[in-house]
Amino acid sequence: MIKTDVVIIGAGPCGLFQVFELGLLGLRSEIVDSIRTPGGQCAELYPDKPIYDIPAIPICTGEELTENLLKQIKPFDYGITLNDELSVLNKQKDGTFMLETNSGKKFQSKAVVIAGGVGSFQPRQLRLSNADEFTNKSLHYKVKDSSKFKGKKLVVLGGGDSALDWAIDLSASARELTLIHRRGEYRAVSSSVKKARQLCSEGKMNIIDNTKVTKMTGKNGKLTSIKISQQDVEEQEISVDHLLVFYGLSPKLGPIADWGLDINRKTINVDTEKFQTSETGIYAVGDINLYPGKKKLILSGFHEAALAAFAIKQQIEPDKKVHLQYTTTSSIMHERLGVKE
Amino acid sequence: MIKTDVVIIGAGPCGLFQVFELGLLGLRSEIVDSIRTPGGQCAELYPDKPIYDIPAIPICTGEELTENLLKQIKPFDYGITLNDELSVLNKQKDGTFMLETNSGKKFQSKAVVIAGGVGSFQPRQLRLSNADEFTNKSLHYKVKDSSKFKGKKLVVLGGGDSALDWAIDLSASARELTLIHRRGEYRAVSSSVKKARQLCSEGKMNIIDNTKVTKMTGKNGKLTSIKISQQDVEEQEISVDHLLVFYGLSPKLGPIADWGLDINRKTINVDTEKFQTSETGIYAVGDINLYPGKKKLILSGFHEAALAAFAIKQQIEPDKKVHLQYTTTSSIMHERLGVKE
Repeated sequence: MIKTDVVIIGAGPCGLFQVFELGLLGLRSEIVDSIRTPGGQCAELYPDKPIYDIPAIPICTGEELTENLLKQIKPFDYGITLNDELSVLNKQKDGTFMLETNSGKKFQSKAVVIAGGVGSFQPRQLRLSNADEFTNKSLHYKVKDSSKFKGKKLVVLGGGDSALDWAIDLSASARELTLIHRRGEYRAVSSSVKKARQLCSEGKMNIIDNTKVTKMTGKNGKLTSIKISQQDVEEQEISVDHLLVFYGLSPKLGPIADWGLDINRKTINVDTEKFQTSETGIYAVGDINLYPGKKKLILSGFHEAALAAFAIKQQIEPDKKVHLQYTTTSSIMHERLGVKE
Repeated sequence: MIKTDVVIIGAGPCGLFQVFELGLLGLRSEIVDSIRTPGGQCAELYPDKPIYDIPAIPICTGEELTENLLKQIKPFDYGITLNDELSVLNKQKDGTFMLETNSGKKFQSKAVVIAGGVGSFQPRQLRLSNADEFTNKSLHYKVKDSSKFKGKKLVVLGGGDSALDWAIDLSASARELTLIHRRGEYRAVSSSVKKARQLCSEGKMNIIDNTKVTKMTGKNGKLTSIKISQQDVEEQEISVDHLLVFYGLSPKLGPIADWGLDINRKTINVDTEKFQTSETGIYAVGDINLYPGKKKLILSGFHEAALAAFAIKQQIEPDKKVHLQYTTTSSIMHERLGVKE
C-alpha cells in the first residue's frame, strides 16, 4: 500500500499541474489514470492540433503542453500509475481515504483530487439486448491475452485503427477471421486498410463493409453465431466463437459515479472557493467539475488546481497558516531546483 | 476620440491576456497604463526573477512572460497607450463609457476592464504637514520640464537611481544643487554614485548623507528654505528654490478610487462568475480584484480574464449565444494566423 498526501485521479494537464501546486505547498501526490500515457484529452483526442489559449504560450500542441507540464513537475517526488483505474474508494474513520485500482494496487491518502477530464475513456459498447450475457466471455472490447483466440472463429467489428490492427494481427492464428464494418470508409490509417485488403485477397481474412450486427446467439456466455444485416441484402448468419468489438472509446464518469458524490450526468458539483465535492477531502478540478459560471478551459482547470491545493493544505494542516508564496521567492522551488537565493 | 469595444486599464500580464481572450471572441480593445513599458509588476518589480508557477512554463522571467504575452496577442488589432493614466470615467445614458487620460486622450467603449495589479505606481510623498502647499510648484515628484530649474538653488532628496540621475543631470545647469539622502548607502547603480561623488569633489554638487528634511518654509507655494536634521548634529537651514523628491514609487489604487465602485482599501469587489464590479460594464481582473477565496496568483488573473471576456461578449451582444470554442478549432485563430483548417 502506498501512503501519500493526495491521490490525483487523471494524468491530464490539470492532474499534472495539481502535482506542481501541491508540491509547492510541500505535499506529495500519486496520480492514477486509465490511459497509457500522460496528457489526458490533449494527448488522447488531439495530440497534434495547435492550442492557442494557454497564457504566455502563443502556440503549442497537446503533446508539447504535456511535455512541459511533466518537466515542470519533475522537481517534485510524485508517483504515477497508468493503464489502471481506481475503482474502490473508502473513507476511514480517521478521515483518510483507502483507494484501490482494478489491478489491486492500494493507496492511502489524506485527500483525493478528481482531475478526470471528460471522464475515463471506456470502450463504446455493442448495443444488443443480450450483450451483457457474453461480455468478457465471448464478446470482448479489448484484448488482454491473444492466445485464447488461437484456432478460433473470430469476428472483429469496427473500422478504426484498433479494429484493423487486431484483425490483421489475429488473422495469422485464427481458424477464420471476419472484419465487419458499419460503413464503407475506414478511419484506420490507409496502410492498415491496404494490408487487410491484401490478406482478404489471399483468403486469410474476410471483410464485409456497410454491415451491422443485429443478433447474437449462444448459451452460458458462449457465442455460437451472429446475424448480420446489410441494406438491400437478406440477413445472414455467421458462426463465431469470439466477437471482438472496437467501436472506439467514449468518455464516461466511470467508477467515480458510484462514490456517492453530488454529481450530474457527466460532471461533479464543487464549491467555487476550494473546488471541493460534496464529500469533505474529495476535490474535483478541470473539465469534470461544475460550478456557477464554469467554462471548460484548460486554463480554468489550472486555476482550480492551484486553489484546491491551498484548500487541501489547509485541510491537512488546519493549524498551519498557509501564506501565499510567490514562486520567485519560494524556498521550496529554490531548494528543489538548487537555486541560490 | 478612439472608439473601441473594451478599454483595459493596465498592461500587466492580465491586461495583455485580456486582449487575447477578448480577441478570441471578436472584440477589440485598447490598453492604457501609467508605466512606460508593458509587463506590470513583473516588469516593474521583478523583471529578472524566475517565475515557476505559470502552467506549462517550467521557468521564465517576468520579462519573458511579458514578451510571450505580447507575441500571443500580436494577431489581434489592439491599441496600447503607455505612460499615461485614465483619470476620468463617465457612463453615458446609452451604457457606453467615456474615458479620458491625464494627457487628454479620449476613449469611448462598451465595457471597461480594470487589470490594475497592485494599483498605479505613484511617487512616495514627502511626509511634512505643509507639503501640499508646495506640491507641483516648488516641491516636485517628477521632472516634466527641466528648463525651469536652470540657475536655481535645488535640493534633491533620495538615494535611488532617479534621485542620482536627476541630481547629476540638473547639477550642470543649477545655481547650486544639494543631494540629501536619509541613509549612508545608495540604491542607485554604483557608477552613478561614483559620478555624483566626483561632481561633489569638483564643487559642482553637495552631498549630505544620513539626513532628513524636517521642515519646509515658504509662502504662496514658493519654498524659501528647508531645515535638515542629522543625528547628533544641530539642525541646519538650507536656502532652496525647488525641492525634488525621489523616494521611489508606491502602488495606489489611483484615480479608480473615485469612480464610485465598491472598493476596499486597495482592491475592488467583484462577483465570482463574471468578475464584474458593482458597476455594470466595469470588470476587474488580477491582483486588483477581490472575491471569496481570491488568491493573488498570475494564473488566477488569467482565468478571470478569460471568464470576464465571455461575460463582456454576453453584455455587448446579449442576443448572440456565445459558444465555448476550443482554440484548436477556432475559426478566429485560424483566420488571424492564416492557418489552413
